[in-house]
Amino acid sequence: MNFHEQAVELVKKMTLEEKMGQLRYDAPAIEKLGVPAYNWWNEGLHGVARSGTATVFPQAIGMAASFDPDLLWCVAEAISTEARAKYNGYKQFGSTGIYQGLTYWSPNINIFRDPRWGRGHETYGEDPYLTGSMGRVFIEGLQGDDPTYRKLDATIKHFAVHSGPESTRHEADVEIDRETMDDTYLWAFRYCIEHADPSAVMGAYNRVNGEPCCGSETLLKKILRDEWDYRGYVVSDCGAINDINEHHHVTFTKAESAALALNNGCILNCGFAFRSLQDAYDQGLVSEETITNACVKLFEARFRLGMFANDCPYDSIGPEVIECEAHRALNRRMAEESIVLLKNDGILPLREAKTIAVIGPNADALDVLLGNYNGYPSRYSTFLRGLQDNFDGDVIYSKGCHPFIDAAQNPWMEDLTREAVLAAKRADVVIMFMGLNPSMEGEEGDAYNGHNAGDKADLQLPPSQKRLWKAVRATGKPIIFVNVSGSAIDLREQEKGAAALLQCFYPGAEGGEAMARVLLGKVNPSGKLPVTFYRSEEDLPPFDDYHMEGRTYRFFKGEPLFPFGYGLSYTSFEVGNVHRGFENEISLSVKNTGSYDGMGTVLVYVKSDSRPELNKQLAAYRKTFLKKGEEKTLTLELCPEILERIGEDYEIIAEI
Amino acid sequence: MNFHEQAVELVKKMTLEEKMGQLRYDAPAIEKLGVPAYNWWNEGLHGVARSGTATVFPQAIGMAASFDPDLLWCVAEAISTEARAKYNGYKQFGSTGIYQGLTYWSPNINIFRDPRWGRGHETYGEDPYLTGSMGRVFIEGLQGDDPTYRKLDATIKHFAVHSGPESTRHEADVEIDRETMDDTYLWAFRYCIEHADPSAVMGAYNRVNGEPCCGSETLLKKILRDEWDYRGYVVSDCGAINDINEHHHVTFTKAESAALALNNGCILNCGFAFRSLQDAYDQGLVSEETITNACVKLFEARFRLGMFANDCPYDSIGPEVIECEAHRALNRRMAEESIVLLKNDGILPLREAKTIAVIGPNADALDVLLGNYNGYPSRYSTFLRGLQDNFDGDVIYSKGCHPFIDAAQNPWMEDLTREAVLAAKRADVVIMFMGLNPSMEGEEGDAYNGHNAGDKADLQLPPSQKRLWKAVRATGKPIIFVNVSGSAIDLREQEKGAAALLQCFYPGAEGGEAMARVLLGKVNPSGKLPVTFYRSEEDLPPFDDYHMEGRTYRFFKGEPLFPFGYGLSYTSFEVGNVHRGFENEISLSVKNTGSYDGMGTVLVYVKSDSRPELNKQLAAYRKTFLKKGEEKTLTLELCPEILERIGEDYEIIAEI
Repeated sequence: MNFHEQAVELVKKMTLEEKMGQLRYDAPAIEKLGVPAYNWWNEGLHGVARSGTATVFPQAIGMAASFDPDLLWCVAEAISTEARAKYNGYKQFGSTGIYQGLTYWSPNINIFRDPRWGRGHETYGEDPYLTGSMGRVFIEGLQGDDPTYRKLDATIKHFAVHSGPESTRHEADVEIDRETMDDTYLWAFRYCIEHADPSAVMGAYNRVNGEPCCGSETLLKKILRDEWDYRGYVVSDCGAINDINEHHHVTFTKAESAALALNNGCILNCGFAFRSLQDAYDQGLVSEETITNACVKLFEARFRLGMFANDCPYDSIGPEVIECEAHRALNRRMAEESIVLLKNDGILPLREAKTIAVIGPNADALDVLLGNYNGYPSRYSTFLRGLQDNFDGDVIYSKGCHPFIDAAQNPWMEDLTREAVLAAKRADVVIMFMGLNPSMEGEEGDAYNGHNAGDKADLQLPPSQKRLWKAVRATGKPIIFVNVSGSAIDLREQEKGAAALLQCFYPGAEGGEAMARVLLGKVNPSGKLPVTFYRSEEDLPPFDDYHMEGRTYRFFKGEPLFPFGYGLSYTSFEVGNVHRGFENEISLSVKNTGSYDGMGTVLVYVKSDSRPELNKQLAAYRKTFLKKGEEKTLTLELCPEILERIGEDYEIIAEI
Repeated sequence: MNFHEQAVELVKKMTLEEKMGQLRYDAPAIEKLGVPAYNWWNEGLHGVARSGTATVFPQAIGMAASFDPDLLWCVAEAISTEARAKYNGYKQFGSTGIYQGLTYWSPNINIFRDPRWGRGHETYGEDPYLTGSMGRVFIEGLQGDDPTYRKLDATIKHFAVHSGPESTRHEADVEIDRETMDDTYLWAFRYCIEHADPSAVMGAYNRVNGEPCCGSETLLKKILRDEWDYRGYVVSDCGAINDINEHHHVTFTKAESAALALNNGCILNCGFAFRSLQDAYDQGLVSEETITNACVKLFEARFRLGMFANDCPYDSIGPEVIECEAHRALNRRMAEESIVLLKNDGILPLREAKTIAVIGPNADALDVLLGNYNGYPSRYSTFLRGLQDNFDGDVIYSKGCHPFIDAAQNPWMEDLTREAVLAAKRADVVIMFMGLNPSMEGEEGDAYNGHNAGDKADLQLPPSQKRLWKAVRATGKPIIFVNVSGSAIDLREQEKGAAALLQCFYPGAEGGEAMARVLLGKVNPSGKLPVTFYRSEEDLPPFDDYHMEGRTYRFFKGEPLFPFGYGLSYTSFEVGNVHRGFENEISLSVKNTGSYDGMGTVLVYVKSDSRPELNKQLAAYRKTFLKKGEEKTLTLELCPEILERIGEDYEIIAEI
């Protein structure tokens, strides 16, 4: 019997009530059938999350900055290995609770269309192709390559047209045309489904053109099932089905919401709405057949994960893999590749300095290593610790200020500005670790920035940090400024005033070690921005506007501070000799023209007069290692699904 | 001219308004006289606090547990050296702001009469003599031994009869008899004033017998000035003078409060009440002479600190002393001596284990190292890190639970109980780091435990931790339980179920390293409890009752879980041959009868039939190193100020 047949056989033995229970994220045990309780909710954006000790890799936005899908596949493979090890432990208890299972609600492949979105750092940035290609390998790494069993279920989320504001997500109705959806918001979903077969899709909280995503006939039936022929399961975001009546007011009762979701194909409920399925059934709103089919589909997934098998090869993975040396090394490598060098007047790599002052509220902070949806590392390296462990000279530390509370507003609060200035004066070079933290940008209810519900009101550094920057800047000491954040910040002042400027997305447990190795030249930086760094929020359309005009490198007509794809190296590269080859293939040559070995990433854009509103569009990229002076010819394939949206008459722009 | 005369000369040149301004904690500059702005507020309970990077020593209660005044003197000396280094930096800015000066509002020598008091960990515990003798050396170490200049001003606080509840401190009126005050609440103040000459005394928030402490004729004039002949200055706790009209309702206006305080000798105002001194003067409530005399006294203190001198030897202390290697080593030593071994079935020191599981929310937490009123260490060792760095075998980590939020109450929260159980099952030995943290016990407005205003409602571990304990206990693995807290906790379950039990007060930046060295036998534990560990809150009188009946080892008639002075060693000691000598001297012999070298602390109590309510009273103690088998004869002096309260006919009880 195949998994479907096994599921059919099993579900046949269930009562209606039992079947309805199995559509809940916290599916209860059915003891007579040997079905243990199973909680479907698991998170693993950048490491097994909320399940205790795990390798905490850089946040997704940082892994996107690596532009290294091969490395991301390795990370996803490590995550699924650790997840299996944990599951194998937990199942010994006879059931698996929340964050103890095999069905992962990652990756987040929403388009980071506005830098104010608090959850943007969970994504792979603003570009559809980068998002789709990174999402694809992440799914593949999670789901494994066993011919019989899935290693984990990956879930792409949030379907669809979801990227803030967090404050209105439970009631917002996004009006958007199908063209923009296909071009931007749906592109990566379709791409991942076609290329990586994710087990599941998660419906978003919001409405799209009047229909709540988790009960949308257009999204779930017309597009996902009929147009894309998707055969996986759809799970609701947590509480999203309740929102349909409580906040969207599209239905009147929970029973109606549950029926709307289930009838349209959202068959697994995170939240409590499906507890009203009995009511819905009694009212004739949903049929037993629909319930049965949903239940079969979910059990097919569980059979495919080997939950009821005794020959699943992943059952032998033991806890020794969790945070093993190989995963630590991989983590450090990904952290290194995620760091983006934005400016360097020659001060980096740091060679001459004998004394450095390490200043800033993020210098010795753990939370900025972890991002959100994280596990706990048993060992980690803050930026300060990384420098202490790697720099041969003296390291002077001053926290400098609170991340966001300004001492100038409270006469009894400690004000460390002067300490920071004194530290700077004693040093040859100042390294400032500033920016945001996950309490300042994140998910509604998870980040704690008050009325913004996790979003950013603007792109500014907090006043406390602006004050610190000015004071340290006034010392005249050369400053290496490291902005730590999950999103674009207005860094105009630092771009002018700092000797070197780096962007570090929440970098994981090895972040400090990786940063030290980059700053000290043990590693040549190779990250590139997966999002546009605008000059300020004034350059942006209203946050709640989902039209793409004026957003992202594709449609923004202004001058960004740092464009998408920007990122310097200690060496220099040239790209040339672009030739079109067979079908969508192109060849080009890349050369390391500088004096350091390093990894260069060629970004290949297409552009067409048939779409004048579109500045250009990423269609291929390749990261490659080049020794100094080395030249290589690379062959790349332009993504056909990008080309089909551009037309046949396109121009190719290769950048490195 | 001596300092007094210099102060008189300087103050003569000031206008009345200028003089009034100088009685504020944030004294403004008087440019025409070359007087820079000076903020009197500084904190240094266990390291320079709120002024950035500093050596963070164990919290005061932990240093009391060392019973090692010689070592505490060294700590205070290190603190004052770092404070001077900071001041020397800050004064280059032409003024010194809050937490940048030389007038330290430490130590806190209140009696920790009830374990529910949130600020109890700032004190030296429940015993007057231990508190007085530790306070004395702390003051000496802060104030230095230069024949001309004071290194820092030490301030003993909070005068008087102050030890919670935090929630009512601004309006509470403590009814208490003079005998209890002299015997308990005032004893250490008088002792420190007589033996160590602290520069300042801080008035408390509360009232005593109807009089607000900061405006109390009884406390400030009758007792402090007339009876004790104290000639230092009195500063108000912050906002305490405003409380006189706003919360105590003893006066009607700020001006009246300011006058009441100043006229009774509280001459320096932390807060804003003295901004109403002009009103008070205009209303005839305070004379210019009183203002002038106060101003002279404060400038005498500033001259004595060398603020206007060019020959002050402390001016040459540079920033390299901050967190220097010597201070780190001293810090580790103090942390080691502060750890109290409460039970050991022989599992410690840890020798056989190949794999240990480190479990608990305090295992890798930074906040429990720091306590409150802290600086920031640039390097620190959590308990987990300390074991990873020192243990040769495998270390498995599980956080286990949130310090106080119970996952059982929130179905979407991570529940790490099973992870902890799995970790325990893989290990030979489990080490649990549990207890409280400074957000759960601390000062009103500083600790964040809701309606308790920093106090503890009871002596219980939080439900989240009780649940974790039970689950790990059920594995049957041997558990070494480390309770981390600043106060007594009901540890009955652990005393029964753990193979070893330790109390670690908030241990400072080297806490993890120190703990690992104790657990692994590189150091023999030598701390002793400076407070009684009761069986439960049910054994205690009401929290707001200041009578001593039923409180502390001196008056508690029940059976404590662990008594004051309790603390085991890896070796065993015997004390004997107690002989009275000349005047208050006694001699006794101590012997190390076990198989490890180690430090033993003999505690000498007195007891008299003339005070039947008093169980016994500490009158001397001595910590001494003894090699295994070694025997020594020690000569100690029984404290005369204790004996005078006991009468001539007393019994001597020596314990070790």
